[in-house]
Amino acid sequence: MKIIIRHNGDEFNRMATSLVMASMWQDRRVNVSLTGGSSPRGAYEILAKEIRENKKDYQDVHFYGFDNCDHDLYRYGLAESMLVPDLYQPAEIADENIHYLTSENYQSYDREIAAAGGLDFMLIGLGADGHFCGNLPNDTILDRECYVIDISKNENLQAIMSDTYKGSKPSDVCVTMGSISVMRVKQLVMMVNGKHKAEMVKKMIESPVDPGFPSSILKLHPNFILLLDEDAASLLD
Amino acid sequence: MKIIIRHNGDEFNRMATSLVMASMWQDRRVNVSLTGGSSPRGAYEILAKEIRENKKDYQDVHFYGFDNCDHDLYRYGLAESMLVPDLYQPAEIADENIHYLTSENYQSYDREIAAAGGLDFMLIGLGADGHFCGNLPNDTILDRECYVIDISKNENLQAIMSDTYKGSKPSDVCVTMGSISVMRVKQLVMMVNGKHKAEMVKKMIESPVDPGFPSSILKLHPNFILLLDEDAASLLD
Amino acid sequence: MKIIIRHNGDEFNRMATSLVMASMWQDRRVNVSLTGGSSPRGAYEILAKEIRENKKDYQDVHFYGFDNCDHDLYRYGLAESMLVPDLYQPAEIADENIHYLTSENYQSYDREIAAAGGLDFMLIGLGADGHFCGNLPNDTILDRECYVIDISKNENLQAIMSDTYKGSKPSDVCVTMGSISVMRVKQLVMMVNGKHKAEMVKKMIESPVDPGFPSSILKLHPNFILLLDEDAASLLD
Amino acid sequence: MKIIIRHNGDEFNRMATSLVMASMWQDRRVNVSLTGGSSPRGAYEILAKEIRENKKDYQDVHFYGFDNCDHDLYRYGLAESMLVPDLYQPAEIADENIHYLTSENYQSYDREIAAAGGLDFMLIGLGADGHFCGNLPNDTILDRECYVIDISKNENLQAIMSDTYKGSKPSDVCVTMGSISVMRVKQLVMMVNGKHKAEMVKKMIESPVDPGFPSSILKLHPNFILLLDEDAASLLD
Repeated sequence: MKIIIRHNGDEFNRMATSLVMASMWQDRRVNVSLTGGSSPRGAYEILAKEIRENKKDYQDVHFYGFDNCDHDLYRYGLAESMLVPDLYQPAEIADENIHYLTSENYQSYDREIAAAGGLDFMLIGLGADGHFCGNLPNDTILDRECYVIDISKNENLQAIMSDTYKGSKPSDVCVTMGSISVMRVKQLVMMVNGKHKAEMVKKMIESPVDPGFPSSILKLHPNFILLLDEDAASLLD
Repeated sequence: MKIIIRHNGDEFNRMATSLVMASMWQDRRVNVSLTGGSSPRGAYEILAKEIRENKKDYQDVHFYGFDNCDHDLYRYGLAESMLVPDLYQPAEIADENIHYLTSENYQSYDREIAAAGGLDFMLIGLGADGHFCGNLPNDTILDRECYVIDISKNENLQAIMSDTYKGSKPSDVCVTMGSISVMRVKQLVMMVNGKHKAEMVKKMIESPVDPGFPSSILKLHPNFILLLDEDAASLLD
Repeated sequence: MKIIIRHNGDEFNRMATSLVMASMWQDRRVNVSLTGGSSPRGAYEILAKEIRENKKDYQDVHFYGFDNCDHDLYRYGLAESMLVPDLYQPAEIADENIHYLTSENYQSYDREIAAAGGLDFMLIGLGADGHFCGNLPNDTILDRECYVIDISKNENLQAIMSDTYKGSKPSDVCVTMGSISVMRVKQLVMMVNGKHKAEMVKKMIESPVDPGFPSSILKLHPNFILLLDEDAASLLD
Repeated sequence: MKIIIRHNGDEFNRMATSLVMASMWQDRRVNVSLTGGSSPRGAYEILAKEIRENKKDYQDVHFYGFDNCDHDLYRYGLAESMLVPDLYQPAEIADENIHYLTSENYQSYDREIAAAGGLDFMLIGLGADGHFCGNLPNDTILDRECYVIDISKNENLQAIMSDTYKGSKPSDVCVTMGSISVMRVKQLVMMVNGKHKAEMVKKMIESPVDPGFPSSILKLHPNFILLLDEDAASLLD
C-alpha cells in the first residue's frame, strides 16, 4: 500500500483524474472498473469531457461494473446508478464498452474478465462501515470471486436503498466482486476525502485483516494506492 | 535475446516441451501461438499426451494461428495443416479454444487478440530463407500487424506448396502476423535444430535488421529465447 | 487459485521441476524464492544437475530466502538449512546470486527485492499446522511485509528445532516474509504431497481467511498454483 | 503505436505531464528515462513542482539517462545537460536516484537496469533528422543494446554541439541506448510539437524500418504512444 495525500479539493481531484486517465493511455485494450458515488464526481466531470472530446483515444477502453442489486430500479446497482449520469452518459461511452455484473452473469463474470485480459485498473471508495464494492461487514467471505449477498436482513443497507429509491421496496439480493476478483486487478486505487472518513481511514490502516471490516484485506493488494485528501488523512501520524 | 543450447534429441525436446507447457500453467486465461513443422514434433508428442490426460488443467488455454493460405486444401496454412494432426487432434483441444488467422479476419485479428489479453507465448521456427511466420524475404514490410502477402510470384514457395499438396494449384494469397504482432507477444521462443540450419542461425544472429532476412528483426523482441540444439549452434563462437 | 493434480512420484516431481525451471527461462534477470524441506527434494535433484551443467543459462537468476532463525546453528533458517545442501551447493550457485533474509536486514528486505524488480516466482510448502514461510498459526498478522516472530513460547516449533539441531538451545527469534511480501510475488506455487497432508490441503481450500490457519490467505494470491500429488488431493471432491 | 493528438500548448503539456507522472504512481520501485530538450520543458515545470512538494511520494522513482557524450562540458550529454536544470535540480531529486549512462558503464548499463527491474517508462523526442536517443541516421545499427557512436565525422552534430557549448571542442565519442534497450521499456512515449516537426512525424509513420531514419523502428515497440500537438500532426490524414 502506498499512501498519497493531497490538498482538499482541486489538487485531490486532479490527482484522481490523472490516475484514472493514465490507466487508459495504453497502446492496447484496457479494462477498468470505476466506483460511483460522490467522491469521484469532481474527477469524473473532467474525465467525461476528456473522453467525449477525444473519443478515438478511448475506443479500446472497457468499463466493468463491480457490484449490482437485483431490482429494476437499481438496474446498475447503488453506486453504478450514479456512474451512468456522472460518467457513462456525459462521456458518451459506447454501450458495447460497458459491462455490468448482474445476478445472471456473476458466476461467469470473473472468467469473462480473464478472457478479456483482466482488469488493468480499479477505482473504489471506502464505505462508512468499512465495506468495499459490495463486501459488507460480517456478510463478507474474504476468499471469493463474484458472489451473491443476501441483504434482506441488513437494515442499514435497506434504509440507504429506501432512501435512494424512494417508495420502492429494496432488493434482497445483491451481487459483488469478491476479494479474489479485486486482488487480481493490476492497479487498485481507493480515493477517500472528507473529515467524516478520517476515522475509517485510520481504522483501515491499523486494523488487522478482519471480515468485520472488509477493506482491511485490501492492504494485501500488490499494487494498491490509497489516495487521501488532507481531511481524510487528518488522523494519521 | 537469450540463447539456450541443448544436446540434440531428447534434451532439446524436453527443454522445448517444458517451455511450451510452463507458459500454460497460470491461474488465468493463457493465449499461445505455436508453429507447425518438423522441429517441434517431438515436443508436441509429449505435449499432446499431457494435455489429453489432464484436460481440466488446460481448459483456459487458447491457441492462435499465425499464418494461413487462402485455399481450401491448406485451410490451416502450410504450418498449421501440420499442427492439426500433430497437436490439436491428439491433444483433443476443443474447437472454441482454437483460433485461425484467415483472409477474412486478418484485419481484425490483432484487435481480437488484444481483446483476449494478448498473446502470452509464441513458438516459431526459422525458415530456411530466414522467414518467420509468413514474413518472407523481400516481401516483408517490417512494421506491420497482420497482413496479406501475394505469393503468386514466389516460385520457391509455390514449389514447396505444390510439393506438400500434390496435384493442387497453389494459393496465391497468404495472410500472416507481421513484426508488430510478434513484438507484442510476451514471450517469444524460436526453436531450431539440425546442422542444415546452422548457417541460418549464424546469419540471424549476425545480420543487421534487414527486410531481406526477416528473422533478423526478432533480435529486437524484449523477451526472446533462441533454443538451439548443438547442431544448429555449431557455427556460433 | 488453480489446482493441478499429478500422479504420485515421478509425474509430480517432473511437474514441479518444470514449473521452477521455466520461471528461470527469461531473457532478463529473474528473482525466485524456493522452499527447502523434503517435498521438493526430488525436483531439486533434477534442477541442481540442470543448473550445474548449464551455468550460463542461469547466471541472471537470483535466489531469495523467505525465512530465517537467529542462531548460528540455523544460519539459513530451518528450511533453508536444507536448501543449501539440496540445491545451492550441488547446483554450484554463485554466492552473489543468493540473498538471505536475516534479523539484520528484514526491515529493508522487501525494498531490496523491489529494487531488483520484485520476485518472479516462489515455491512453498504447506506446514502441518497450516503455516507458510514462517507465518505460524496465531502468531501471524496477515497484513505484514517481512517481520520478526517471537517463537520462545511456541513449544511445538521449539521441539522441532531441538530435534533438528540436537543438543543446541533453540533460537527465540525468527524472521519471515509476511503475507504482503508473498502477495507481491508474480507466480506463487505451493507443492504438497503425501496422504498425511491431505487433511491440511482440504482445510486450506475450505477454511475462510483465518490467522489461525495462515495458508488460508494464499487463496487471495492473483496467480497461485496449488500442485498436489494424488495422495495430498485424496480428500478433495 | 497509438497516436494521441492534443491542442497546442496547455492541453498538450497537461497530457505529457499526466503521462509522466502517472508512470511514477505505483506501489513499488519505478524506473524512468526522460528526454531533455525544449519539447517537454512545459511539462517538466509542472512535474518539478509536484515532485519537490511531495518528495515522499517519489522516493522510489529512479531516473536513468539514455545517452551521453564523453566530454566534461557535456557531462550529462546534450539532452541531459538540459535535464539537470529543467528537472533534476528544481525537483530536488536525490543523487542516488539519478543514474547516468557513460562511456565507462555503457557495457553493463543494460544489465544494471535489468537488475533494477527494467525501465517502466521512457519519454523521448523526435530528432529533426529522425534520430531517437543517440541513434543517428546511418550511424545506427538497429539491433543493439547500449553502444558507442563515433561522431567525429558527423558534421551536423558537431555543429550543434559547437553551437550549444560555444568555444569548446566537441566530443568525438557518444554513448546511447540502442534499439534493443528501448524495445524493453514497458511504456514508450514520444512527444512532438510544432509545425517544423510535422514532416518528420509523417515520415516516421510512413517510412518502412530503415537505419537511415532510426525512429522508424519505434513503430515495432509493443506499447508506444506518439503524443502530438496539432501542429506536429498537421500533415497526417
